[in-house]
Amino acid sequence: MTYDLWYWPGIPGRGEFVRLALKAGKIPYVDKALDEGADVAADLAVPRDTPPLAPPYLVADGMVIGQAANILLFLGETHGLAPADTAGRLWTHQLQLTIADMVAEAHDVHHPVAVGLYYEDQKPEAARRAEDFRTNRIPKFLNWFERVLAHQGDWLTGDRWTYADLSLFHLVEGLTYAFPERMAAVARDTPKVMALHEAVAALPELQAYLASDRNQDFGEGIFRYYPELDAA
Amino acid sequence: MTYDLWYWPGIPGRGEFVRLALKAGKIPYVDKALDEGADVAADLAVPRDTPPLAPPYLVADGMVIGQAANILLFLGETHGLAPADTAGRLWTHQLQLTIADMVAEAHDVHHPVAVGLYYEDQKPEAARRAEDFRTNRIPKFLNWFERVLAHQGDWLTGDRWTYADLSLFHLVEGLTYAFPERMAAVARDTPKVMALHEAVAALPELQAYLASDRNQDFGEGIFRYYPELDAA
Repeated sequence: MTYDLWYWPGIPGRGEFVRLALKAGKIPYVDKALDEGADVAADLAVPRDTPPLAPPYLVADGMVIGQAANILLFLGETHGLAPADTAGRLWTHQLQLTIADMVAEAHDVHHPVAVGLYYEDQKPEAARRAEDFRTNRIPKFLNWFERVLAHQGDWLTGDRWTYADLSLFHLVEGLTYAFPERMAAVARDTPKVMALHEAVAALPELQAYLASDRNQDFGEGIFRYYPELDAA
Repeated sequence: MTYDLWYWPGIPGRGEFVRLALKAGKIPYVDKALDEGADVAADLAVPRDTPPLAPPYLVADGMVIGQAANILLFLGETHGLAPADTAGRLWTHQLQLTIADMVAEAHDVHHPVAVGLYYEDQKPEAARRAEDFRTNRIPKFLNWFERVLAHQGDWLTGDRWTYADLSLFHLVEGLTYAFPERMAAVARDTPKVMALHEAVAALPELQAYLASDRNQDFGEGIFRYYPELDAA
């Protein structure tokens, strides 16, 4: 059976964390909007017993699974993309939820007032939030991942990559796109995180996808590059 | 065996979502800071293979489980506080992650610039964010829960309460504390959500806890009452 992934076309967004797991796990799926031009907003409005609040959601085995971290929990359990034991499964999910927290904060840097307003309508607020994000939040999160890797080894769960390593790769990609100057400075203090980023980028399972035009540009999604929000 | 819950004393905070599940599930635990005066910051700094980034975390069966939603996933599976089948388990977790998203937004209303600054240092930004939260975000989330209950029945997963119902109860408690005028208006459009709130408040399993002084005031936690941020 094939899974259906529903996510807004045009940006990697939160859908990308799911896509990377599907691609690296060699799991067949249809990306409904990208592959078939399906209307995400219309599908989201369909009455269901378990409606998702927002994309991404995965239609799998008759289930409609929403929330990126929840989809990854399912894929991890079903396709061996995370340890199978309780401790390892929960640890991987804890990592993912912490990544999700940082993703939300990275978005709110350019939208600190309202997701429904343009960045141009909240630039002074964004400038203040960006300074705090660069100075305090990026080091807080990435130093924590560095500390984890000091205990765990090459991957966040020790022996082999999981969906959380793929997501940390994409998080570092996004942060580096949005805050190139700041990330150049932070990278010097987080060599293990940067080595993990390189290791995921080199995974044989991902080469075809990363080199393809299916690997979408960041554009105006979660991670955005506004030079005035970056600084070393 | 007894679980150890680690969370900052003095506010319900994100620890409360875990406490409600432990109490309603009649699961023995030690609230390390509240019961024993333990130093949360010192424990958080202890080197571990699986360090939490922040409280709450639960020490259980040799595991250190961080992230409130992840702790609830564990408690749900281990103590029957969620459906046991895959579809029901993932649906309950999806609900919880959506509650967590709204909790984070409710916090950022009074801290739109930086969690490390005082509210008094970000009041103009908070005023703008509060207007959007009241007008757009509260209805978006609560109308979604209303829609869910229209399909599911009295509880978010149908037949009986789960940890997600307990969390939605606390979310409504917090929102009503922080935005009393706005919630009075929204309540008229979300009668099923309000009925669920009343049903959880009436659960026999929670009466002793809710009436005790262990049920902490909101104070300066996630949910804060600043009259200037509220309006109908």
